[in-house]
Amino acid sequence: MIDTAALIIIGTELTRGIIQDRHGQFVSKALSSLGIHMTQIVAIPDDGTIESILGALVRKNDLVVITGGLGPTSDDMTRECIADVAASPLERNEESWKSLYAKIGDRISGANGKQTLIPRGFTRMPNPNGTADGFYGYTPDGRLLISLPGPPKEMQPMFENLVVPLLSSLSGKGETVRNEYSSFITAEAKLEDLTHSIAPDLTWGTRFQDYKISLYLSGGSAEDRERAIAALREECGSQLILDGDVSALDPLVSRLRAGGLTIACAESCTGGLAGAVITSAAGSSDYFLGSVVSYSNSMKETVLGVDPAVIASCGAVSEECAEQMADGVRRLSGSDVAFSVTGVAGPAESERKKVGHVCFGFSSRQRGTQSVTLDFSSWGRESVRRKSVVTAFLLTAAYLDGVDLRQTVSSWKWV
Amino acid sequence: MIDTAALIIIGTELTRGIIQDRHGQFVSKALSSLGIHMTQIVAIPDDGTIESILGALVRKNDLVVITGGLGPTSDDMTRECIADVAASPLERNEESWKSLYAKIGDRISGANGKQTLIPRGFTRMPNPNGTADGFYGYTPDGRLLISLPGPPKEMQPMFENLVVPLLSSLSGKGETVRNEYSSFITAEAKLEDLTHSIAPDLTWGTRFQDYKISLYLSGGSAEDRERAIAALREECGSQLILDGDVSALDPLVSRLRAGGLTIACAESCTGGLAGAVITSAAGSSDYFLGSVVSYSNSMKETVLGVDPAVIASCGAVSEECAEQMADGVRRLSGSDVAFSVTGVAGPAESERKKVGHVCFGFSSRQRGTQSVTLDFSSWGRESVRRKSVVTAFLLTAAYLDGVDLRQTVSSWKWV
Repeated sequence: MIDTAALIIIGTELTRGIIQDRHGQFVSKALSSLGIHMTQIVAIPDDGTIESILGALVRKNDLVVITGGLGPTSDDMTRECIADVAASPLERNEESWKSLYAKIGDRISGANGKQTLIPRGFTRMPNPNGTADGFYGYTPDGRLLISLPGPPKEMQPMFENLVVPLLSSLSGKGETVRNEYSSFITAEAKLEDLTHSIAPDLTWGTRFQDYKISLYLSGGSAEDRERAIAALREECGSQLILDGDVSALDPLVSRLRAGGLTIACAESCTGGLAGAVITSAAGSSDYFLGSVVSYSNSMKETVLGVDPAVIASCGAVSEECAEQMADGVRRLSGSDVAFSVTGVAGPAESERKKVGHVCFGFSSRQRGTQSVTLDFSSWGRESVRRKSVVTAFLLTAAYLDGVDLRQTVSSWKWV
Repeated sequence: MIDTAALIIIGTELTRGIIQDRHGQFVSKALSSLGIHMTQIVAIPDDGTIESILGALVRKNDLVVITGGLGPTSDDMTRECIADVAASPLERNEESWKSLYAKIGDRISGANGKQTLIPRGFTRMPNPNGTADGFYGYTPDGRLLISLPGPPKEMQPMFENLVVPLLSSLSGKGETVRNEYSSFITAEAKLEDLTHSIAPDLTWGTRFQDYKISLYLSGGSAEDRERAIAALREECGSQLILDGDVSALDPLVSRLRAGGLTIACAESCTGGLAGAVITSAAGSSDYFLGSVVSYSNSMKETVLGVDPAVIASCGAVSEECAEQMADGVRRLSGSDVAFSVTGVAGPAESERKKVGHVCFGFSSRQRGTQSVTLDFSSWGRESVRRKSVVTAFLLTAAYLDGVDLRQTVSSWKWV
């Protein structure tokens, strides 16, 4: 049974910063999906450090994977160290010798000959793309050691084709299931707190990205995971936790494409960010007509046709203004649907309207113009702007579905 | 004297293979250029493994750098472990507390308050981009410990601005003078090649950011560095390598503020990104009136007043259209100056207009409307959009100075 693993990556080019490691993530991901817990990834130079590291890691892990150090020079000490730890002498592997002879001919009698030595009792792993075969075997107390060459184009195919099948058959666990969700607006620390208290027995992880947090659940039964995610949705708002690896824009774009609809937007505090995110996708000209960034009140009035009396009485950050902005840009662009964003991104704020106070308007041919207001707990200007863009996308999709927007946002407890 | 160092990278997302490590190469490269030998790079999960690892590494190295584990949750154990190894109790750092209070207010009284604790006798390293400050100090037997936050955009500037100068002064090699420049548009690999061939005897480094590359020169005399940067400017274009840590927008904003001028823009391929970047700065409403994102031809015509005959004969991606867009948005917004961007961001392109073909227009009260075209060597849609935004900012500043724009861009050899 293999539960824990460590990875040793040998290469002075790594510890000098000359090249970027490419094994750490590759191996971790593969082991993780096999349900094996990676306890450490260690990169060390080709200077013999392997001796002390390997001994220490093999005592604490069921499996140690070692990449590199299998070359023909005296710096390449991996095979000697593994032989020591496995208490098994190096001997020539005939298959490996024949294979190398076929590749390099008589040069095998020089330093390269060393590359055909593996510890007695270990199994050869053929390397179709280089001169150094890999090998695997056990220490006297049953720890598995796997040694692979360093170059990614040699190591990675060997890992996929030989190591993964070997570990799958040894693990006896079969397939490990891991569910992925995309969470929006709720802060990462809050999402972690909630997940921890809702699903103490599941394994979970989060990954912060600019506009979303990926949430991973594993362990338990499928029902356990379903129950946990339903409870999380109850807590955060069901529109804010979507299945799979999706963006906040995906639900909106799929509705626009399905309905053959065009969209435009009017932005104030987001300053163009909504349009920039929409147009970062190739092909967005199929549905996106444009945006009016009315940062000044005069542009709201002269370009979008917002009534100056509304700005004077309710302010530019108001649901009334947001509705007129959305109607205005829809009329101006001729789009089927439009949304607007106007709010206080900070740091300046007023007595009545605090940083994070943002109003959204929604306009379409099919249904009446609507608006909602959110008060984001702010972590600064960029955070308010990003949350505003994400909210605008999610709510415009809900608006197209005919959902009650005020009720929707009233269930968003952790904005 | 610091000869040997180890790096501990804390993050369960790394050992699960969810994300790719970005600290290993960054730190190794920097330490290597300071003559410090990296003996080990260790990535571990947020599960308390740090305890045993830190103790072992601190016995074998003059310096241990730890990234991550400084968050507010119970998983974040770095500060406790360092306090143990340094045999020094944690105590509240008042500067850190004030700074965090300014960022998050009363929420500091919850779990975040922990982020202001550092071991007694250690020195705070302020983090301008996040809630977790870093800190450094010594163990009883004189080993240096440096603790930094995990997110690369927080950690990397702190490393460049605080850790490198600290290590330079400790290394006993004398004060290392380091000049910093901000380079735009030229690709990082090209900038490295050019620097290497122009200044083989200087020490240099680069750091890629979304809209710029920071270039650092050290070694040699002040004249050597001056000569090198002059040669680089000759090669790349003098507007594309600015002194110090500045953004592409800084020269434009300083001219707007100095002249009390307002600006607006009209965007097509950038989709709102120019406005989003301008408004990411607090206080931008002092000079920015707004933007029209005319993604469709009809919005170019109906909102900005571009002549349909121009679009029919020259195309929407043309200098003629760019000039009319700039004039149109200036008229519409009533701004003193305006720029426009219209181009092919890709991946779709036409026979006559390839990906990276972008036209810019410039309009103002003071001088005649102008336009230029650039053909960016594209690395994809986002790269073309970012280069377009940077170019628009740099050229609008040059336009306000009365510089000949066509001659300017003809000297930009590596766009």
